[in-house]
Amino acid sequence: MDFFPPALETLIDQFARLPGVGRKSAQRLAFYVMGLPEGEANAFAQAITTAKDTVHVCPQCQNLTDADLCNICRSTKREPGVVCVVADPKDVIAIERSREYNGLYHVLHGVISPMNHVGPDDVKITELTSRVAQGEIEEVIMATNPDTEGEATAMYIARLLRPFGVRVTRLAYGLSVGGNLEYADDATLLRALEGRQEL
Amino acid sequence: MDFFPPALETLIDQFARLPGVGRKSAQRLAFYVMGLPEGEANAFAQAITTAKDTVHVCPQCQNLTDADLCNICRSTKREPGVVCVVADPKDVIAIERSREYNGLYHVLHGVISPMNHVGPDDVKITELTSRVAQGEIEEVIMATNPDTEGEATAMYIARLLRPFGVRVTRLAYGLSVGGNLEYADDATLLRALEGRQEL
Repeated sequence: MDFFPPALETLIDQFARLPGVGRKSAQRLAFYVMGLPEGEANAFAQAITTAKDTVHVCPQCQNLTDADLCNICRSTKREPGVVCVVADPKDVIAIERSREYNGLYHVLHGVISPMNHVGPDDVKITELTSRVAQGEIEEVIMATNPDTEGEATAMYIARLLRPFGVRVTRLAYGLSVGGNLEYADDATLLRALEGRQEL
Repeated sequence: MDFFPPALETLIDQFARLPGVGRKSAQRLAFYVMGLPEGEANAFAQAITTAKDTVHVCPQCQNLTDADLCNICRSTKREPGVVCVVADPKDVIAIERSREYNGLYHVLHGVISPMNHVGPDDVKITELTSRVAQGEIEEVIMATNPDTEGEATAMYIARLLRPFGVRVTRLAYGLSVGGNLEYADDATLLRALEGRQEL
């Protein structure tokens, strides 16, 4: 039994499809949009179509961009011989924020995850190997998440790149800066000990 | 420093405006929409403009509708002499679901709430008094929420309607069906006792 007008039901359905948005939240969001002035609701709709129309993946690093080649790939100030491999465009931003890294990126758009039916062909790994095959890359830094799937993906890619004679590294494990020894988990503490460095 | 393409930033901003959606969630939602097939993303955008274009408030009961007069106001099977006053279109659905009520509705689109700067003129109270002034309504059932603001709004409207000689009633307070006496709060228990009925 539909009590709302069909157009409103359709809007609620659309919101309910979004990840983490249930039926009740979708109603709340739809009512909020209904309450917006006409111009603002149209701006919202426009933002969806514009983003979808103009944003695509960079043909080189697979990060999201609205240009032919993304800003980072185009930059002449970055080291072209170092590539940092991340799972997600959001991870690029996290690393850029550290202001420490000056190489290029490669965005996988996911990690290998047999549990979720994501195989090596479902993430942008072939795009990475063909970049490395061109011979200009000297080091590939694996910066996937430090969890099981990120770790497995890093190992898989490292093995795949071995024939190319390129240096493959992995982000260091250890204690969080500003963290507390008391609350560090055993596995992290073990890795922090193993990776200890001379002062 | 913007790392995402501007069109994507705009979409994230739009999602971040929605109630209960923070910056991180907005990113997640925007990325989800970016990952949709083009047709589905456009359908989402279309749903917003269509809902906004076709859905408006019923000139009689102020409920949301896409017709000149809403289904309930138009129906010949409903008692035109009884009007149930609710705060929100969602409340109409809650009462309809009980299948017990056969009168008309009046949607206030909010309750009087001085704390949130919502005065009597910000909700659809004048629309209600002019409906009552036409003289065909015999009973007005106040079905605002049983909280402080809903209660105050009900009282305010009841006083306002007194000159019209119309019967104004309020939904009963008492125990929830299927509830547990042990967990009922004192105020509810008191009202349940006061409102006790002969068996």
